[in-house]
Amino acid sequence: MPEKPLILVTNDDGISAPGIRTLISAMNEIGDVVVVAPDSPQSAMGHAITINSTLHCNAIKIDNGPQKEYSCSGTPADCVKLGINEILDRKPDLCVSGVNHGSNSSINVIYSGTMSAAVEASIEGIPAIGFSLLDYSWEADFETIKEYIISITKKALNNGIPMGNALNINFPKLKGKNIKGIKICRQANAYWVEKFDKRKNPQGKEYFWLTGEFINKDKGEDSDEWALANGFISIVPVKFDMTDHENIKTLKNWGF
Amino acid sequence: MPEKPLILVTNDDGISAPGIRTLISAMNEIGDVVVVAPDSPQSAMGHAITINSTLHCNAIKIDNGPQKEYSCSGTPADCVKLGINEILDRKPDLCVSGVNHGSNSSINVIYSGTMSAAVEASIEGIPAIGFSLLDYSWEADFETIKEYIISITKKALNNGIPMGNALNINFPKLKGKNIKGIKICRQANAYWVEKFDKRKNPQGKEYFWLTGEFINKDKGEDSDEWALANGFISIVPVKFDMTDHENIKTLKNWGF
Repeated sequence: MPEKPLILVTNDDGISAPGIRTLISAMNEIGDVVVVAPDSPQSAMGHAITINSTLHCNAIKIDNGPQKEYSCSGTPADCVKLGINEILDRKPDLCVSGVNHGSNSSINVIYSGTMSAAVEASIEGIPAIGFSLLDYSWEADFETIKEYIISITKKALNNGIPMGNALNINFPKLKGKNIKGIKICRQANAYWVEKFDKRKNPQGKEYFWLTGEFINKDKGEDSDEWALANGFISIVPVKFDMTDHENIKTLKNWGF
Repeated sequence: MPEKPLILVTNDDGISAPGIRTLISAMNEIGDVVVVAPDSPQSAMGHAITINSTLHCNAIKIDNGPQKEYSCSGTPADCVKLGINEILDRKPDLCVSGVNHGSNSSINVIYSGTMSAAVEASIEGIPAIGFSLLDYSWEADFETIKEYIISITKKALNNGIPMGNALNINFPKLKGKNIKGIKICRQANAYWVEKFDKRKNPQGKEYFWLTGEFINKDKGEDSDEWALANGFISIVPVKFDMTDHENIKTLKNWGF
């Protein structure tokens, strides 16, 4: 790695969200920063990519930092693909995504645009980290976790994120000084019970809003939900191989 | 299970796509079928869900089959959530998604709307299968694989898909009689090298189309790519736990 690492920054809340502005400011203390982020919020986009419509990308300047910034019309995964293949002139040393406004722990990882960007980078062989804060508010206090973001990122660069992994890092909604520490975790086995809010439009036609309740029956103290509920930052190594290797044997017994 | 299983059918190519029409016809031979599928193509939507806009759902009739059908404005994952929570009056015994027009083998599983629907069902505790045919054409011959779809689905219902798994089933582009058999596989370690086609609009502004080349360096004969290239149907058990459990130990050595 050259003395100053090249860092690609993206997110799913959009390029002007407070979370990414904190992340950019933190990364400026570590390396040369290029931001390629969505021009509008892309939450819950999962690993969507844009194949049936065009993508636009514009250089912009939002603050006085040394970073270069590009605002793009696509999804978080599109931004990573565009950043790596069109905008950067060399492969970045790291891709960071976030800081997401709200949790991406446990099953949320699968719906998360923030984590899809990090996973996309890992697929392309680039060390990647997604950061999320358990506070949906636009006024959330990101400044309080900035030092943690810097120290964790430096540790990741020094140790090397295992090839094919992206780190899913969630912060509890606590002042930095009240955070108890950092736990390496597995994704909790939790899920959402959907509730659709059924309404009628002014013309009397029915429509739905998706809402839901988060259910965590996982009591394991090695899970991300446990860590966060107990005041720790959670780090889960996430991989893009979705095969359930243990069940291959089970299926082989079906006798095809 | 009651004598006739209740089967929820969805896809990502839209409710009128030839692939889902074949799948509906096949499922009518096995159980009571309810279709809840997107009203427009949703390919490459990954695990996107709709949280910042409304969802619409209309009962429709497309052919003379016995199934009930609903056309929805959302993503494939939305369709599954709506189907299970709003449309069906009991939990389905099975959710099938597809038949996708094009491959969802190896890394494509992560971008696939077809598989996101199946994975969503598995998160909700419902046995699920995604079917895909390696032929992007709208005129693809789905009829030739219909008997395979029926026999595999019956086998899955009889044996029970392992809890938390969705089956990712891909068919080679071959006449049914030329298919060599069925292989239980792991996801091949393959990826896309993106190429963005850069163009200018009539006003001279630059825009991009995402294209790419599929690279498979995985030589393993236990991978889905190997099975498909050699004339077999591939079945991969897919899980929604994205934790790389083996690397938890590695990260613990970082000394947080």
